[in-house]
Amino acid sequence: MTIPPTDGQPRYRALREAMGAAGLDAVALVPGPNFRRIFGRAFHQNERPLVVLVPLEGAPAAVVPALEEASFAGLGFEGEAFLWRDEEGYQAAFDAAAHAIPAPNRLGVEGQHMRVFEQFALHRALPAAACLDAQAAISRIRLLKTPEEVAHLREAIRRSEAALEETLGAVRLGMSEAEIERLLVRNLFDAGVQELSFAPIVAAAGNAAEPHAVARQDYPLAPGDALLFDFGGTWQGYRADITRTFFAAEVSDADRAFYESVRAANAAGRAAARPGQSCGALDDVVLRVLEASPHADGIVHKTGHGLGLDVHEDPYIQRGNETLLEPGMVFTIEPGLYRRGRIGVRIEDDMLVTETGAESLTSFPRALRLVG
Amino acid sequence: MTIPPTDGQPRYRALREAMGAAGLDAVALVPGPNFRRIFGRAFHQNERPLVVLVPLEGAPAAVVPALEEASFAGLGFEGEAFLWRDEEGYQAAFDAAAHAIPAPNRLGVEGQHMRVFEQFALHRALPAAACLDAQAAISRIRLLKTPEEVAHLREAIRRSEAALEETLGAVRLGMSEAEIERLLVRNLFDAGVQELSFAPIVAAAGNAAEPHAVARQDYPLAPGDALLFDFGGTWQGYRADITRTFFAAEVSDADRAFYESVRAANAAGRAAARPGQSCGALDDVVLRVLEASPHADGIVHKTGHGLGLDVHEDPYIQRGNETLLEPGMVFTIEPGLYRRGRIGVRIEDDMLVTETGAESLTSFPRALRLVG
Repeated sequence: MTIPPTDGQPRYRALREAMGAAGLDAVALVPGPNFRRIFGRAFHQNERPLVVLVPLEGAPAAVVPALEEASFAGLGFEGEAFLWRDEEGYQAAFDAAAHAIPAPNRLGVEGQHMRVFEQFALHRALPAAACLDAQAAISRIRLLKTPEEVAHLREAIRRSEAALEETLGAVRLGMSEAEIERLLVRNLFDAGVQELSFAPIVAAAGNAAEPHAVARQDYPLAPGDALLFDFGGTWQGYRADITRTFFAAEVSDADRAFYESVRAANAAGRAAARPGQSCGALDDVVLRVLEASPHADGIVHKTGHGLGLDVHEDPYIQRGNETLLEPGMVFTIEPGLYRRGRIGVRIEDDMLVTETGAESLTSFPRALRLVG
Repeated sequence: MTIPPTDGQPRYRALREAMGAAGLDAVALVPGPNFRRIFGRAFHQNERPLVVLVPLEGAPAAVVPALEEASFAGLGFEGEAFLWRDEEGYQAAFDAAAHAIPAPNRLGVEGQHMRVFEQFALHRALPAAACLDAQAAISRIRLLKTPEEVAHLREAIRRSEAALEETLGAVRLGMSEAEIERLLVRNLFDAGVQELSFAPIVAAAGNAAEPHAVARQDYPLAPGDALLFDFGGTWQGYRADITRTFFAAEVSDADRAFYESVRAANAAGRAAARPGQSCGALDDVVLRVLEASPHADGIVHKTGHGLGLDVHEDPYIQRGNETLLEPGMVFTIEPGLYRRGRIGVRIEDDMLVTETGAESLTSFPRALRLVG
């Protein structure tokens, strides 16, 4: 792998290393976490395409909506920006930007973030280039968090956990999931988070059995219900992602045992995570605890995902993933067990790999707790 | 155009009419506004692909992450769902779903909502099909709002306007944009909105000159500054989108004239909108007012966009768009003028086309107002 000269363009150094390793001649970046990491500024994706083409060597080029010109100028972009106005459309700007960089044979795009209409416009501009989904290769630039990034995550988590505690104090039997969710969101912003990491999940009883449940307006929280919160706020773009499950007023012995199986799996994962371990091996540690429990048929998902400027990113803690954990990686450990129509329990922590093991950035207590 | 039999699948009727008109044999839907309109339920997009293939005739098929099985079951889906688990990946489910529908020649996708990795998986499963960006064709099913949809928009707007009034009462000189934005967000949730329509914009002085500004932590609101709010909350998925611009404590004569040019353009557009008028002609009415003002060089964007389950959708109120307005269409009228580094003014209303003209669903006063 050759590291090309990046004189005057130091912010592309890590990206170009990743491109070299993946055999890419150019990448096309869209607003999102990689864009923010490289340019230090958030842009929102909308129906007006904004794409930056970064060649392995030479100056980058950009396709920029005219109305974003002032915002874009704030980036101190090193290459030429081809502006397009609503009334003329964007294809000519794609064509011009494509011709401003050395013609690529292999063009990488962020498959999870670029949308089809943008890729189609790129393909029309560069019909001879092979367009490859290079999501993982490009996102390698964000895989190892700097101390500053970890500090932002800690701040996001601290504020999010404070909002959860505040919310639990206000939960009462008979409240709807939607009502509790509104309380949580208000408490998150009161705690000073800057955005929601994602649309939060507040789900009780049978609804908690759906990993991506939508809060119901019409179900009143009843004694013995599990009550699951999966939520987080952001700080400087970095996203907390925390799940805790409580019980309303009381808990049956069977549900307590169900809960404790998940808690044991979460604890085993937190204790086992360390540098040099593969993501797949860590998933095994966690899932084996669930598989050895009487509730093994309640397993529906892997252990976790990376976390940072994106809420789901590498490394994925999943069987078959041979990636070795390294100090600076941040990911979730979130085992869950589910009984359709009856109960769901998930306990999710945000972990930082250290030199000797892993630290849980989340510290909200995990012992079974009754609320309401 | 033949309307195919839809026995037992009435919810695809409008979609299949749109497909017939666009010459599509099948469409691939991803979670988002069209999905929600058809299935009556919100799903969130994440890194696990969920795609529904709807052929022009016959049963649909779906690619569904195993952990969404319970949520997906709630849709009462008419076809076969091909589940995939994290450890095995999703391509086999794409292949199986593709073979479960009649082989399409022309496959339409939502270019603004489908991501590249999903389209690549579709292409591998259906290499012989031409994959077309059919965003506009598919979204036609949402172009004319039902009375129930309009009621949801009214509710979203009513709550959003209440939150703005509450926020203005708390604005003080010296506050940062970020501080005011946090107040606004809290007031939106206190007013009962269910989600934010989009990340709100709160921008003062020179920052207001960037149409998609990000709130600053460090700029204190000063006398004479313009203060622009572009924001909205949702109700049942329907998105308010409102912009108002105020001045902090005082306003210069020059800035008042600048503001009044925008207000006149907004008023002209609201008065002119009516069934049978083209979107391009309406844009002309609005832009001509700005062009005739002494600030014509401050124009950077078109008049508006459609609004509903998506925050930017058809019809786009833009020169060259020959679409004729029809009763039931909802769109924004949001002229703006900008002086880079100094000031931006935008006034945005949400309009419903009626039988005889157009009604502004937004009613927040537009007269120049001093705050703080």
